[in-house]
Amino acid sequence: MNMILLFQDDFVGAGRVRLSGQRLRHVLDVRRAKPGDELSVGLLNGDMGTATVKDISDESLEMDVSLFSPPPPALPLTLILALPRPKMLRRVFFSAGSMGVKKIFLINSYRVEKSYWQSPFISDEHIGQQLVLGLEQAKDTIMPTVQLRPRFKPFVEDELPEMARDTTAMVAHPAAAGPCPRNVSGTVVLAIGPEGGFIPYEIEKFSACGFKPVTIGERILRVETAVPYIISRLF
Amino acid sequence: MNMILLFQDDFVGAGRVRLSGQRLRHVLDVRRAKPGDELSVGLLNGDMGTATVKDISDESLEMDVSLFSPPPPALPLTLILALPRPKMLRRVFFSAGSMGVKKIFLINSYRVEKSYWQSPFISDEHIGQQLVLGLEQAKDTIMPTVQLRPRFKPFVEDELPEMARDTTAMVAHPAAAGPCPRNVSGTVVLAIGPEGGFIPYEIEKFSACGFKPVTIGERILRVETAVPYIISRLF
Repeated sequence: MNMILLFQDDFVGAGRVRLSGQRLRHVLDVRRAKPGDELSVGLLNGDMGTATVKDISDESLEMDVSLFSPPPPALPLTLILALPRPKMLRRVFFSAGSMGVKKIFLINSYRVEKSYWQSPFISDEHIGQQLVLGLEQAKDTIMPTVQLRPRFKPFVEDELPEMARDTTAMVAHPAAAGPCPRNVSGTVVLAIGPEGGFIPYEIEKFSACGFKPVTIGERILRVETAVPYIISRLF
Repeated sequence: MNMILLFQDDFVGAGRVRLSGQRLRHVLDVRRAKPGDELSVGLLNGDMGTATVKDISDESLEMDVSLFSPPPPALPLTLILALPRPKMLRRVFFSAGSMGVKKIFLINSYRVEKSYWQSPFISDEHIGQQLVLGLEQAKDTIMPTVQLRPRFKPFVEDELPEMARDTTAMVAHPAAAGPCPRNVSGTVVLAIGPEGGFIPYEIEKFSACGFKPVTIGERILRVETAVPYIISRLF
């Protein structure tokens, strides 16, 4: 982690935090911090700054915190992903979190295996852990929102039209005629299909909401590669 | 896998292959193929095409193979990576292989942990496995070459100047003044540092060989995210 994310509950006084658990272990074992050392910190959904180690032991760490700079800008992007294989999902959250994606929808699709919806990796706790790690990697504090939509039809019929209004809306589709655009201005809504892609009915539903099918070429990338690849091209 | 990679040793007659092991398991368990089914195949470093299942059992699979189309174009890129954490390395090989990277150098750097050079994941066998999976993902047949350079100085002094000649050479560096260019034409040599980045001495050595330090913004990405992110921007 390049920054330690702090939560309101960590504060034990004005400008003073006390950490234990995983963050303490990181500071002790990886940073090997001593009293007087400065660490990069950020407050969840708040500003970033530095913390000076005051007191550190095997049980707890106390630091004086000074927050003075805003987090980096968020990407103007809503990312809609057909629920990926659970093992991949963790890495997708990490990388999306680190790139500044703030709105993620995980949706069902014909080619999503039903068992994926039972995975513990889609619990709020697991998702939150990966997102925090992504924020700490990139030095950002704004927690993304992740929403699950286990039914495709109500999602595309009831929510998608409003979501796509006044945006550049696109669905990544290997068989699409047009290339993925570069360096887009304004807000983007991007949908990425499951392994094997969205089925024609699903592509039609997206198209009906104004989504343009776009391709990134003949190579079929795994979702964890496709997400940074497409985001980098768009922004 | 979206294509099964075949090797010369798989051929048991003209246009006839026999597979066992992992590829047989994939065809049986994931594809649930029956005699008469067609599968997408490619010959290592050769053409791609289709194979028709002739005979399939728990012990072996025989297919008639027809190869008729060339693999997709390779990226005109040499990728130089400070040896990443072994767990990440596997995913980097997979994604680099799937994106069409054909020349990879893993080099030492001050901030590379020495123990990484002892990892079994940098054996030819492990690297080869991930690269094959990447090719099968993207439908490509051309095996990338991976070369290890455990000593920084001889690499940058003896090999790098020649490698960078007549190319766009750049080193990804968070503190760089210039942004990573988009849509570059010609051959690129791209160096990506370790966690924490290259040290100033290393950046100077790269600069002396004509490498321009470039940045992808204030967010620090993990190497497995940075590789697809930067490649997508460049090509």
